[in-house]
Amino acid sequence: MGIVTLTTDFGLRDAYVGAMKGVILGLAPNARIVDLSHGIAPQDVAEGAFVLASGYPHFPEGTVHVGVVDPGVGTERKGIVAQTNRAVLVGPDNGLFSGIWTLDPLVRAFSLENPDLMGPEVSATFHGRDVFAPAAGHLLKGTPPDAFGPAVRAPVTAELWQTTFAGDAVTGRVVHVDHFGNCVTNLRRDTVEGHLSGGPITVRAGGHRFDRLRRTYGDVERGQALVYYGSLATVEIAVNGGHAARELGIRRGDAVRIER
Amino acid sequence: MGIVTLTTDFGLRDAYVGAMKGVILGLAPNARIVDLSHGIAPQDVAEGAFVLASGYPHFPEGTVHVGVVDPGVGTERKGIVAQTNRAVLVGPDNGLFSGIWTLDPLVRAFSLENPDLMGPEVSATFHGRDVFAPAAGHLLKGTPPDAFGPAVRAPVTAELWQTTFAGDAVTGRVVHVDHFGNCVTNLRRDTVEGHLSGGPITVRAGGHRFDRLRRTYGDVERGQALVYYGSLATVEIAVNGGHAARELGIRRGDAVRIER
Amino acid sequence: MGIVTLTTDFGLRDAYVGAMKGVILGLAPNARIVDLSHGIAPQDVAEGAFVLASGYPHFPEGTVHVGVVDPGVGTERKGIVAQTNRAVLVGPDNGLFSGIWTLDPLVRAFSLENPDLMGPEVSATFHGRDVFAPAAGHLLKGTPPDAFGPAVRAPVTAELWQTTFAGDAVTGRVVHVDHFGNCVTNLRRDTVEGHLSGGPITVRAGGHRFDRLRRTYGDVERGQALVYYGSLATVEIAVNGGHAARELGIRRGDAVRIER
Repeated sequence: MGIVTLTTDFGLRDAYVGAMKGVILGLAPNARIVDLSHGIAPQDVAEGAFVLASGYPHFPEGTVHVGVVDPGVGTERKGIVAQTNRAVLVGPDNGLFSGIWTLDPLVRAFSLENPDLMGPEVSATFHGRDVFAPAAGHLLKGTPPDAFGPAVRAPVTAELWQTTFAGDAVTGRVVHVDHFGNCVTNLRRDTVEGHLSGGPITVRAGGHRFDRLRRTYGDVERGQALVYYGSLATVEIAVNGGHAARELGIRRGDAVRIER
Repeated sequence: MGIVTLTTDFGLRDAYVGAMKGVILGLAPNARIVDLSHGIAPQDVAEGAFVLASGYPHFPEGTVHVGVVDPGVGTERKGIVAQTNRAVLVGPDNGLFSGIWTLDPLVRAFSLENPDLMGPEVSATFHGRDVFAPAAGHLLKGTPPDAFGPAVRAPVTAELWQTTFAGDAVTGRVVHVDHFGNCVTNLRRDTVEGHLSGGPITVRAGGHRFDRLRRTYGDVERGQALVYYGSLATVEIAVNGGHAARELGIRRGDAVRIER
Repeated sequence: MGIVTLTTDFGLRDAYVGAMKGVILGLAPNARIVDLSHGIAPQDVAEGAFVLASGYPHFPEGTVHVGVVDPGVGTERKGIVAQTNRAVLVGPDNGLFSGIWTLDPLVRAFSLENPDLMGPEVSATFHGRDVFAPAAGHLLKGTPPDAFGPAVRAPVTAELWQTTFAGDAVTGRVVHVDHFGNCVTNLRRDTVEGHLSGGPITVRAGGHRFDRLRRTYGDVERGQALVYYGSLATVEIAVNGGHAARELGIRRGDAVRIER
């Protein structure tokens, strides 16, 4: 019995996600399938990479993570099976797993080319159902990753997590606005504390200025904005009881600067 | 251990879907329950029929598919258990399974009348929880379909897939607009290729004209529209990286004509 | 093998719900995890309490219900494990389980304080993942509720279900507007029938007046409003084929009065 997670931009209104689950259960009847998210914005590989990386650390060793945000489906882009020390990743080779690889390095990857490990017919537009779900099912049945095709030396990566250092400042950006409107940045706690240890700090984002880090929402009055280390151990900006992105006018991609 | 799929117009905000799952697990603790969709537009039987038919082929033999789009709940409309060669269908007798029957013919059907196989109390407004979920649970426990009630000779069907032929043309319609805005038609690849084999073709839809079929989105420039055989093996209209229904002004029900 | 239900205000776009499931499956690989709802309005404890209470009765004995609508996360508010006769409840001690306790009284409750039964690191803002999911996993593994911390004498409760009686009238309120726009009240069938037995009745809500209770939607013409006992055995107001809240201008919290 193994765990498969699914992360896609398919939404939940169509039967696309269900069809993938049917295919997986047809091959591996004991699979435990967990939805990470099907609400990735259409074709937004960077958002998919973020959501995959934020869920990844909380799954047991051996979990198979399937990601399908795939604007290049049916073109020359490859599909891959990629191993880390703790898990196996399945999806298009377009950078979707880059966020995970910053947490847990890629060990080896293989191209999904073996037709015996695909569905009976492979459409040009739905590899989630016809290539990636069958791969997940076969992996759960014990097929080794190298059975899927030749090794891929350098899978596509995307620079999602870049932060820059200049003197007494660290600059990152908002990489995700969550369901509550909280603005999650790529500024990791260990980076910030390593670079700016001791002394008071100032955080600047979207024209707003914060002169301290709080611990949790309730540390400020209802309706007030705060900066804190969020549940991903990175700097976040929120409004207690409110929607920070909307109320502060902050968007994904905006710079966030912390200075001493 | 058996698989149950659920397709409803209940949405995911209330506990209605969860209550159905609780009832099924109470009867069949090993059931594997898969959501096909709970985002069917309220009371839209035709959309439910489409989504059920699009997920159906990808589930293993013996799967129980429960559908609840049920504007007539509590009235004289019957509930049915319907067998095909591969699966068992449970829901209101209102045409919701018509799309499946065009793929895999109905073998026999029974009326859901046996009170011993229903919940302890049957509300007049939530047969999903009180009639259909218990039926699915009992089917998984091994209760045969004919134990639920008398045979139903002619379950309600709906003409969802009708296409018309005239000379060198085939006309169908858009039967679904998916999450990406792709316009899925009922023009099957085998029908089109059988009727219009060889030679160039023209596709007309919503005032737009396409002079060839493409293989996948990436075959045209970003922002351009295309026609192709989609993942259901029917003609679809999409915009690469865009939302075809919105950008081309196409709606469900619109005619799509292919001519030589 | 045990069942865990999840009810949160997390939405389905982020990996928050998935992370909770990963944590539970890491501790209890055979857990059957069912989503009740992740669409509770942010921080709306009363709505969460309603949804939990509406799903609760339909789950088997021994189910663990986890609720996370938690505006006070990381502050002094406690987390609790609360036992009823049929189930175990896990979440913040903020009244979220009050609706369940009116159906099935609280037997005993314990504060979630034992760090050995929490995640390896406990964030200040995501106790769903770091405290409540681990508690659910440990409960499924057989850890007794009193291992989590000291007894809590009087968990926080909220008066969600209050109805008032005056002469020949019972007054309650709309406690939920569901996905269909149906207005669910807290006026229980047994209360109404006990207090107003026999004779014609009048129902008043939002400036509208109804002179009888119907059985189901189809008892009135399409587009017409009706009052009936809904699937939770309380008075509901709906429009056949329509959205009652919008069309009748009724909101959650509005008074509903039934008089003889």
